[in-house]
Amino acid sequence: MKVIQVDRFISDANDKDAAKLRADLKAKGVLLVNLMSSPGSGKTTFLSRTLKDLSDLRLAVMEADIASTVDAERIAALGARSIQVHTGGMCHMDAGMTGAALEGLGTDELDVIFLENVGNLICPAEFDTGAHKNVMILSVPEGDDKPLKYPLMFEQSDVLIISKMDALPYFNFDLEKCRERALRLNPNIKIFPVSAKTGDGMAAWENWLRDARQEL
Amino acid sequence: MKVIQVDRFISDANDKDAAKLRADLKAKGVLLVNLMSSPGSGKTTFLSRTLKDLSDLRLAVMEADIASTVDAERIAALGARSIQVHTGGMCHMDAGMTGAALEGLGTDELDVIFLENVGNLICPAEFDTGAHKNVMILSVPEGDDKPLKYPLMFEQSDVLIISKMDALPYFNFDLEKCRERALRLNPNIKIFPVSAKTGDGMAAWENWLRDARQEL
Repeated sequence: MKVIQVDRFISDANDKDAAKLRADLKAKGVLLVNLMSSPGSGKTTFLSRTLKDLSDLRLAVMEADIASTVDAERIAALGARSIQVHTGGMCHMDAGMTGAALEGLGTDELDVIFLENVGNLICPAEFDTGAHKNVMILSVPEGDDKPLKYPLMFEQSDVLIISKMDALPYFNFDLEKCRERALRLNPNIKIFPVSAKTGDGMAAWENWLRDARQEL
Repeated sequence: MKVIQVDRFISDANDKDAAKLRADLKAKGVLLVNLMSSPGSGKTTFLSRTLKDLSDLRLAVMEADIASTVDAERIAALGARSIQVHTGGMCHMDAGMTGAALEGLGTDELDVIFLENVGNLICPAEFDTGAHKNVMILSVPEGDDKPLKYPLMFEQSDVLIISKMDALPYFNFDLEKCRERALRLNPNIKIFPVSAKTGDGMAAWENWLRDARQEL
């Protein structure tokens, strides 16, 4: 079997903007969490559950999407402060776009802001948004081979949420294999298998989030 | 709820290369099919089943991935002519990259070539690869709201495969709603719900493919 290599496009223009954003938010005591995954991995359901469970924290959400407001409507229905960002076809958020969204949202009187990035396992991993923590979601139906195929996302993430664990009986997903593959790419990644539907595993993730906010 | 709009990056530099590629392949009687989807929607399983079922046609596969050769190995194990394309982090294939891959694969004595594009529901829709037909896969676990969130992919596709139909009982997926949403964006899109696992629905898709090859 032949293997050929084609050109790569690299963009790292926005690292300075990201560092400034990160420092400004830290000075205000606001933790920014960048949430990334494939389309349909359950980001919004996972976020909704987290918002409900952590009602003692002041949480807000920035929903990035190419089009539609379906996700932001779901979050707003929970009573959380939220803003919809339309990327106009763009496949990721960068620091400039995140800064604009933060300005629209307002950062006063908040503990944690989630950026729900565009559903994409590739491009968002290449751009520093200014977040303090990068969290990725991989859902059980997507398969345990994803670390092999999208390594950068796993390398760039502080946390791997394995979602839709309630669907495990119906899919050929090997949790241990997935865990090994992720840890081989990134030995420091924290892995939380969860079901946002049943609530299983959510507490461990939520404790991690509380700690990350306190250690900011 | 506020909505803000950020900048869009547009690339359409490769349309001429794509048109030439398409014409050259047509002159040789080879149909090029560009297969696009999210990571983990079951592209390779779907392709494997199609290759097995259509053993009377001369089929070949170009597997585009950021990294790894897991998909191409699965295809090669079936005895089909195949090539692995590593995009080096790039989130899509364009006509230049497709041309390079076709050269590596060889186009003689073939009826249909599949390009399994990078797993991504956004960027691949923006670049003409030179394919005669664009086919997208949406899997049941991803959700029926995807046409609302990734409209360009649905607009650019000739065929929508709804995969993992065997998982329908375990997910909140409304097939009729999904169909309506896709048809609203693209009234000409052909929709085939399938299970590559059980084989249900595969024949309708395979008949469509035979017709597309004959009408080239």
